[in-house]
Amino acid sequence: MSLMVQKYGGTSVGNIEKIRNVAARVLESYQQGHKMVVVLSAMSGQTDSLIKLAHQMCEDPDPRELDVLLATGEQVSIALFTMAVKSMGYDARSLLGFQVGIRTDQIYGKARIQEIDTKRLFDELEKNRIVTVAGFQGLDEDGNITTLGRGGSDTTAVALAAALKADVCEIFTDVKGVYSADPNVCPKARKMDVVSYDEMLELASLGAKVLEIRSVELAKKYNVPIHVRSTFTKESGTMVIAETKDMEKVLVSGVAYNKNEARITVKKVPDRPGTAAKLFQPILSAGIIVDMIVQNPSESGMTDMTFTVLKADFVKTMKIVRNIAEEIKAEEVIGDENIAKISVVGVGMRNHAGVAQKMFQILAAESINIMMISTSEIKISCIIEEKYTELAVRVLHKAFELENGALQEEK
Amino acid sequence: MSLMVQKYGGTSVGNIEKIRNVAARVLESYQQGHKMVVVLSAMSGQTDSLIKLAHQMCEDPDPRELDVLLATGEQVSIALFTMAVKSMGYDARSLLGFQVGIRTDQIYGKARIQEIDTKRLFDELEKNRIVTVAGFQGLDEDGNITTLGRGGSDTTAVALAAALKADVCEIFTDVKGVYSADPNVCPKARKMDVVSYDEMLELASLGAKVLEIRSVELAKKYNVPIHVRSTFTKESGTMVIAETKDMEKVLVSGVAYNKNEARITVKKVPDRPGTAAKLFQPILSAGIIVDMIVQNPSESGMTDMTFTVLKADFVKTMKIVRNIAEEIKAEEVIGDENIAKISVVGVGMRNHAGVAQKMFQILAAESINIMMISTSEIKISCIIEEKYTELAVRVLHKAFELENGALQEEK
Repeated sequence: MSLMVQKYGGTSVGNIEKIRNVAARVLESYQQGHKMVVVLSAMSGQTDSLIKLAHQMCEDPDPRELDVLLATGEQVSIALFTMAVKSMGYDARSLLGFQVGIRTDQIYGKARIQEIDTKRLFDELEKNRIVTVAGFQGLDEDGNITTLGRGGSDTTAVALAAALKADVCEIFTDVKGVYSADPNVCPKARKMDVVSYDEMLELASLGAKVLEIRSVELAKKYNVPIHVRSTFTKESGTMVIAETKDMEKVLVSGVAYNKNEARITVKKVPDRPGTAAKLFQPILSAGIIVDMIVQNPSESGMTDMTFTVLKADFVKTMKIVRNIAEEIKAEEVIGDENIAKISVVGVGMRNHAGVAQKMFQILAAESINIMMISTSEIKISCIIEEKYTELAVRVLHKAFELENGALQEEK
Repeated sequence: MSLMVQKYGGTSVGNIEKIRNVAARVLESYQQGHKMVVVLSAMSGQTDSLIKLAHQMCEDPDPRELDVLLATGEQVSIALFTMAVKSMGYDARSLLGFQVGIRTDQIYGKARIQEIDTKRLFDELEKNRIVTVAGFQGLDEDGNITTLGRGGSDTTAVALAAALKADVCEIFTDVKGVYSADPNVCPKARKMDVVSYDEMLELASLGAKVLEIRSVELAKKYNVPIHVRSTFTKESGTMVIAETKDMEKVLVSGVAYNKNEARITVKKVPDRPGTAAKLFQPILSAGIIVDMIVQNPSESGMTDMTFTVLKADFVKTMKIVRNIAEEIKAEEVIGDENIAKISVVGVGMRNHAGVAQKMFQILAAESINIMMISTSEIKISCIIEEKYTELAVRVLHKAFELENGALQEEK
């Protein structure tokens, strides 16, 4: 007999009928003899409605009270779900963050789970009850309600699986698994049967929005196997697990893109110690996250600094940078919102040369200009003109043989 | 400096604008130097919507889970209210039942408060924060969420006032106070400036729906002065307090009516020990509350038993009674839904004879037939035909001089 954590997202519990279907699905696993812990998100649209309500009340709602408000969304879904299970003749209990003892830090709106007291959970499981836990919420050490931020229910599920030493954490969503590329852009994208935590981290942060990135970090830390699958089919989805020897046989496992960034270049900055610090300090102080940073080799004591920020922060950042540019006597500041980041990801890159070279050649063959490059052990990212995004994804996906069974899981 | 508990009902916090107005009103009291604890109900309509949702899920929702669901209503209002107060520049904190330590028994849907841990409340008040508490909810000794039933927020407010030894518990509602009769029926009804706990208990249970009856019992037990007043005016309302000598000078302080009961008569029951027990045991076992019971004097070993139940329980009760009637060899069972109960209430009755006699005469003068009579120390109730309800209220109200300043608070 195994212990299973299942998490269902907002679209899976979007209305009464869907919640009833999820109950039936959970009962199937229960009847197979698994001990079941079920984590639910708020019904789809619910969190957005609550945020809207808060903003009708005031421009900048108090973060503590916003968390009190938002936490009701999940409370509604677990109550309704547990009613459904009980009306089908099975014993179940809903538990809120404070009842499970999900202890977090004090950062309202994006709290991190620090500890889970498993006693109550094990007590309920002992009684053969299906335990339903509100996702997305916890309690700080002073007993205040906190929420974990967007996608927080994934993190709740993985954290519970880790604390309970569950055999698997199944994440049910509205897609069939993790794809080698966005199927909307690349119709020949393949569902991956297996992907490593590290690859998933790169794919998630690059825009493959299937799993919340912190949940993957957590799963990696505690070695929790995640099964990402669809609520609406019985097919198995994608297993996200620790890296295996087999995975290294494949150079590239996926191609991701991200259109949410903008690029800023500061031209002809005096190339001396402290310039970079002077430039980035006020940006970071303003809470702006800088993603890629590239500095060109110096020419006659001058250098160009280029970096990317989220499009949402572009205007704010340009304003800050223009002020500093004057101060550090830079020649010019250039901004560009029409860019995209294309990345190829794969643990196989670690031991194989030539992936970068191949990527550049493929893009060049389509006359796609590369504006910035950044690499990690298992990923190569290029900034290109936004209009070429879909083309780039498709040609890279084809060139790295992702379409035709080159993935190890197909062997 | 005094400590004040204020409670605002669902219509007072029915939308964003109204919540903002309540915040402004609370701040007025705060600025006058009072320490403030604010108890809120769910936004009007919210609790009903949630109940509807539960019944869409299943016919007979699990009571534990229904409480988890319903408790979200008050959580939403306190979060929004506290945001409003903070956006106006004042410090405030919302607290849920579990955070305040409102310990109840385990009867889901109509739990009773057993204990309140005041530590957290006093801590927050020490910091000069306005403390907002979710009404209607608590936690049982196993850490499950419970709700207190309809009107439960009144009880929360009075219980908090008792536990904190507050100077006053102000109950804000959509009427100006407690009236000598229903103003819709009796346009000359007067708002009472003061009424005793006992009178209020009789008036509340008889249908003057201003204050939840358990909250009045609690206020009486702990001698908490209640001020019932309108959210929408500055006028003072009605003080509900312990009986004073002055109150006894008035025979009748109010006239109440109740159209929610039905009458059942069991004709010619053998008049011997155990008959009443046999008749009522199965009714009470079915959870049906019997209000008035009258047994006529025995004639030749036979007696008639008449009693009233809620109209909602009428059909169910008739079915049960017909079965027993056969068993105990009663002659006939007669039911009547078209009745009303008219009551006159006043602590002055204790020391003055003749109130009953006067009531009977006044009703007789209007040719209103009395079907049943029941009396207590401070109340006389008569069952009459429903169609005479309004007429009876008006003539009694006039005859007992409630219209023209006869109340002690007018002196």
